[in-house]
Amino acid sequence: MEKKLILISNDDSVNAPGLHFLVDCVKDLGEVWVVAPDQPKSGQSSSLTFNAPLRISEYPGYEGAHLLSVSGTPVDCIKLAMHNIVPRRPDIVLAGINHGSNAGNSVIYSGTMGAVFEGCMAGIPSVGYSLLHHSMAADFSECTPYVKSITAKVLAEGLPEGICLNVNFPAKVKIEGMKVVRAARSHWTEEYQNFTDPHGKPFYWLTGRQINDEEGNPETDLYWLPRNYATCVPCSALQNAPAADIAAIADMLK
Amino acid sequence: MEKKLILISNDDSVNAPGLHFLVDCVKDLGEVWVVAPDQPKSGQSSSLTFNAPLRISEYPGYEGAHLLSVSGTPVDCIKLAMHNIVPRRPDIVLAGINHGSNAGNSVIYSGTMGAVFEGCMAGIPSVGYSLLHHSMAADFSECTPYVKSITAKVLAEGLPEGICLNVNFPAKVKIEGMKVVRAARSHWTEEYQNFTDPHGKPFYWLTGRQINDEEGNPETDLYWLPRNYATCVPCSALQNAPAADIAAIADMLK
Repeated sequence: MEKKLILISNDDSVNAPGLHFLVDCVKDLGEVWVVAPDQPKSGQSSSLTFNAPLRISEYPGYEGAHLLSVSGTPVDCIKLAMHNIVPRRPDIVLAGINHGSNAGNSVIYSGTMGAVFEGCMAGIPSVGYSLLHHSMAADFSECTPYVKSITAKVLAEGLPEGICLNVNFPAKVKIEGMKVVRAARSHWTEEYQNFTDPHGKPFYWLTGRQINDEEGNPETDLYWLPRNYATCVPCSALQNAPAADIAAIADMLK
Repeated sequence: MEKKLILISNDDSVNAPGLHFLVDCVKDLGEVWVVAPDQPKSGQSSSLTFNAPLRISEYPGYEGAHLLSVSGTPVDCIKLAMHNIVPRRPDIVLAGINHGSNAGNSVIYSGTMGAVFEGCMAGIPSVGYSLLHHSMAADFSECTPYVKSITAKVLAEGLPEGICLNVNFPAKVKIEGMKVVRAARSHWTEEYQNFTDPHGKPFYWLTGRQINDEEGNPETDLYWLPRNYATCVPCSALQNAPAADIAAIADMLK
């Protein structure tokens, strides 16, 4: 029987330690192809490149995995991998392990989840993994059993049509377990630090922090992560409003 | 009574004719502030800039509207506008009129809708407008009554929490009316044109076309647009899967 084909991308670039860690976790589950951005692309959401050319670079393999980069976004990586790189249709698309949280409403900005939604829209079971720690020296070791188990189960059983997974891990703690929940409604304070350049002209740099709008709600990811649980949030690539809202708006716009 | 504050952005840049057309349509409904990318940012989804500085440039006003650009993405425009530019909280966020379709699953890639989701997550009623024609010389005149009417109604009545609107107009036809529907499940063929540069190295350019996976379904936008109807798709910024899928996945991962 042909080995399962595992396509891995991320948004921290082909050089990120979290990516290599993910390969280590899943290399025994199939034939691994890594196609990741040649530069960091955090916060790139589902952006894609259609007004510029893309390049592919090939690297020496890593632990038996094929390792390539694309001069674009995570979505470009998945699209171009499927078209020009992998030898057959992937059985699963993985992204990560991201250096930083993709919990709450961060999913909409996440390049990691951009790759995952892209796999999902192509009809492939897709999972994103993220650790709540930005450091390139972050310790991913507590994630191992979860990444192995989730990847193996999704490879074996698939996912419902149009649904993909966003898995987040707390950092620097013993992980107590995993909760399958939904993303908390949350928002970011729009804070910018204001600077003046050496020529007297102003510039602005994004900062701000995430506010949990559902504080104390155990149905949500932002409840469990600070309590040392991993969270798995099933996500939909389609952004249609619920049918009741569609009907209400049809009525209002009559 | 203070005038309503209308914040407008887009992804085709501050110079796009569709943006100026949108100002013309809504300038009588309130005080208009345009904050748009200084360069075209199509296909930028909800990407944002946190690893680089942003600049603001101010232009002579247009038809009484304040006109500024930001050296970033549509999401950056909305965030920085709210923080550093508009004199008070906007009553509505508009984006467009986009030169090109945002129907079907294009919404996930759309920079226009990135601005709209950003407004929505900030709790502001938000609407994106798009014309199914990429030309900078496109004729937007058929859109006028719809843009005026939708904007006025949403200003007066608001939208349900967490819901924003994605309005698409057919091009080069008499518009027969508008349908409030959902986005069709659809996907893009991952097609790249392969080139070789003058130095013998390959590069790739995204092309491909949208495939409607729900052909013939009148509940969807891709059904009505080719039949000369405008479509209004209520969208949700949150991408949580339906509760039944969350429960099924919790069971599988036990």
